[in-house]
Amino acid sequence: MAQQPSIPKGTRDFTPSEMLKRNYIFDTIRSVYKSYGFLPIETPAMETMQTLMGKYGEEGDRLIFKILNSGDFKQSVEPNDYANASSLGLANKFCEKALRYDLTVPFARFVVMHRNEIQLPFKRYQLQPVWRADRPQKGRYREFYQCDADIVGSDSLLNEVELIQIIDTVFTKFGINITVKLNNRKILSGIAEIIGEPEKIVDITVAIDKLEKIGIENVNAELLEKGLTQEKITALQPILLLQGSNEEKFSKLKDILASSEIGLKGISELEYIFKMLQTVSLRSTLQLDLTLARGLNYYTGAILEVKANDVEMGSICGGGRYDNLTGIFGMPGLSGVGISFGADRIYDVLNQLDAYPNDTKEATKVLFINFGDAEVAYSMPIIASLRANGIACELYPDAAKMKKQMQYANDRKIPFVAIVGGDEMAQNKVMVKNMMTGEQNLVEKDSVISVVE
Amino acid sequence: MAQQPSIPKGTRDFTPSEMLKRNYIFDTIRSVYKSYGFLPIETPAMETMQTLMGKYGEEGDRLIFKILNSGDFKQSVEPNDYANASSLGLANKFCEKALRYDLTVPFARFVVMHRNEIQLPFKRYQLQPVWRADRPQKGRYREFYQCDADIVGSDSLLNEVELIQIIDTVFTKFGINITVKLNNRKILSGIAEIIGEPEKIVDITVAIDKLEKIGIENVNAELLEKGLTQEKITALQPILLLQGSNEEKFSKLKDILASSEIGLKGISELEYIFKMLQTVSLRSTLQLDLTLARGLNYYTGAILEVKANDVEMGSICGGGRYDNLTGIFGMPGLSGVGISFGADRIYDVLNQLDAYPNDTKEATKVLFINFGDAEVAYSMPIIASLRANGIACELYPDAAKMKKQMQYANDRKIPFVAIVGGDEMAQNKVMVKNMMTGEQNLVEKDSVISVVE
Repeated sequence: MAQQPSIPKGTRDFTPSEMLKRNYIFDTIRSVYKSYGFLPIETPAMETMQTLMGKYGEEGDRLIFKILNSGDFKQSVEPNDYANASSLGLANKFCEKALRYDLTVPFARFVVMHRNEIQLPFKRYQLQPVWRADRPQKGRYREFYQCDADIVGSDSLLNEVELIQIIDTVFTKFGINITVKLNNRKILSGIAEIIGEPEKIVDITVAIDKLEKIGIENVNAELLEKGLTQEKITALQPILLLQGSNEEKFSKLKDILASSEIGLKGISELEYIFKMLQTVSLRSTLQLDLTLARGLNYYTGAILEVKANDVEMGSICGGGRYDNLTGIFGMPGLSGVGISFGADRIYDVLNQLDAYPNDTKEATKVLFINFGDAEVAYSMPIIASLRANGIACELYPDAAKMKKQMQYANDRKIPFVAIVGGDEMAQNKVMVKNMMTGEQNLVEKDSVISVVE
Repeated sequence: MAQQPSIPKGTRDFTPSEMLKRNYIFDTIRSVYKSYGFLPIETPAMETMQTLMGKYGEEGDRLIFKILNSGDFKQSVEPNDYANASSLGLANKFCEKALRYDLTVPFARFVVMHRNEIQLPFKRYQLQPVWRADRPQKGRYREFYQCDADIVGSDSLLNEVELIQIIDTVFTKFGINITVKLNNRKILSGIAEIIGEPEKIVDITVAIDKLEKIGIENVNAELLEKGLTQEKITALQPILLLQGSNEEKFSKLKDILASSEIGLKGISELEYIFKMLQTVSLRSTLQLDLTLARGLNYYTGAILEVKANDVEMGSICGGGRYDNLTGIFGMPGLSGVGISFGADRIYDVLNQLDAYPNDTKEATKVLFINFGDAEVAYSMPIIASLRANGIACELYPDAAKMKKQMQYANDRKIPFVAIVGGDEMAQNKVMVKNMMTGEQNLVEKDSVISVVE
């Protein structure tokens, strides 16, 4: 009769050992965001359909999880209309709410709704899960956390500079060597301009985005399919295959884009960012990468992605400048720039590098053995005092066999066991056993802390 | 053309000032749970319909938010069947997933699925949002956080003792004076037994649950309606109106329930809990309260609720012992006991008492004024060093008018402003202004930290 329990595909439970690692990742990112003066916000898991639909393209609309109206939702579609409606059409009738797909659109909605409560420039961070009805596969989930920071209300490039500093600090703390790949949508616009196909910019960036995955020949084939002439595709080649140091690339690009005002603007923006970052010593490698395009159409300026140098893994952080995200909600002209850390991939990278600090592996410090009510009554104030001093303690809840209790301490990797029997009570003491060394220490009641700290 | 943005009714955005307070609440609860050796887990927002439906009664089934199957969900209901189906029947066809309604059922599901990875007794805490399609009203939301701790795999009453210690510690940290109201489902069963209506236990507890809200006369009327004779209702009166100290109540109850084995068991369980708690000094008032029944049917032993003494507010924490929650998922015989803090109500109580600590009101410590690129380049390493030392700093991103930048510091309540102009650069120094006192200090580059800490 009992159900065989399961969870929806593409979702995950997190066990304590996974949670300790995940919390280490979130706490690290949060602490760095804070040190840069970013402020926390949270938005509801559910947004109105109106807020979400149409913001992520047709594919996005399909991948948004929609929530059935509570109550008598059937009323909204007559049986006659049901027969002829499409599933998406029905969803629009049956559902007023949906689960958020990312944190950026809810943030834009937040800024507009709270415009009178916030100070511009507004720097916010937000660590919350998002949901996408993607086909689950290795490393791709239907529920996952995004760890975003954005600044709106300032078009200063110093914001880009600080976001790259944040990326450098976070990955330095994690002990992950990274390359920050940088590009600028304006450079891509300049390229489209000089080959005379400004309206093909989206096709070109989408094709460039795939360069690493599918190779130059397939990219060229795709461009041909999209209607670019062979001549123009040939003109694109030196750009797609640009080589050399960042300085060399900038120099060549300035020649290639000499006739494009917007292209030159994009170059000078990136040069400013590189220059300002030289005033602080970064550990990360910075790399101009023209093949970097990022899929989302709302980016307008600098765009970036982060790769781990020593582990094979997709982008572990990304972001960019967008110039009018709040416009759709009635607040035009507000420039923004943001980044998003991919916690799940960082989790995997840290596992592969075995780079988690030791304190993500330990929780309880002392287990008090339970020999019965009298011993427990004697131990209770000692345990309370240790906890008040920040030492995580457990009292084994049952007067089970000593062996079973010690086994629990072992399984849980608890480093100290406190043993209080008749002898210890008679002497007003506690026996503390170090589970690593086996060493035992008979100490005064109020000295336990000094042994286990 | 622009949308007027909104959020679904019953949901909330949290602004930075609200988040700082909420994080203080969550961090406090989390730190106490940790100090007792509880381990964190997280479960997905979405559970299968099978996991959730039927666990919270008919009303609960209605209030669960269901998620429309992605893709062509219409296929699962033929137009002919649509006409005759109920909304709930359709929901069961259209939806395989739903949003979790509490953390207890997902926890039970977790324990069963991960039985080979966890050690019993298993002590877990979980702070995550839950969703209910309740009619929104003051203090009742459709998305709210639960902050739960449970122990499964031990029927020792020391677990109840520790959970009450946790409650006492948490509210002591918050500075909220509380009364912990305690009862035991076994006592309620004993009462049903001695009045000869054991099968009426649910009706009786539901009626008792309403005593405070609707008064004794309405409770009696409701019991009559449920089929209890006037005689039996009269027999219930001394129990409903029991007065005196805890000891007096226990003593009277033992007489009343003398013939009920289960009733006496309930009393002795509570007496043990009260006795063990005397070994540690609690700040909270403990009170035996027979009118406390708690709605959920899965409780089998001790039940508790917490009231703030100095603020008019519903229960701010609750919990109890349940004996077979995992049975429904195929793992019978596992006893559990847990508590849940109501973060939203605690938030309101702390606001009413004005009891938030000062550091929940401040984020950034120092704002560096921006006079232009040269000054920024000079400031960047100083700022980086402060941040590395844990001081939250901001650099104003634009070289805006001084007045505007100072206004930003004021609005954001940033306590220090660092001013770096040509003079300061020439002297290798930084001018630090205390925004509270107005005092200005010209200090060495690497001494800024000593002024602002």
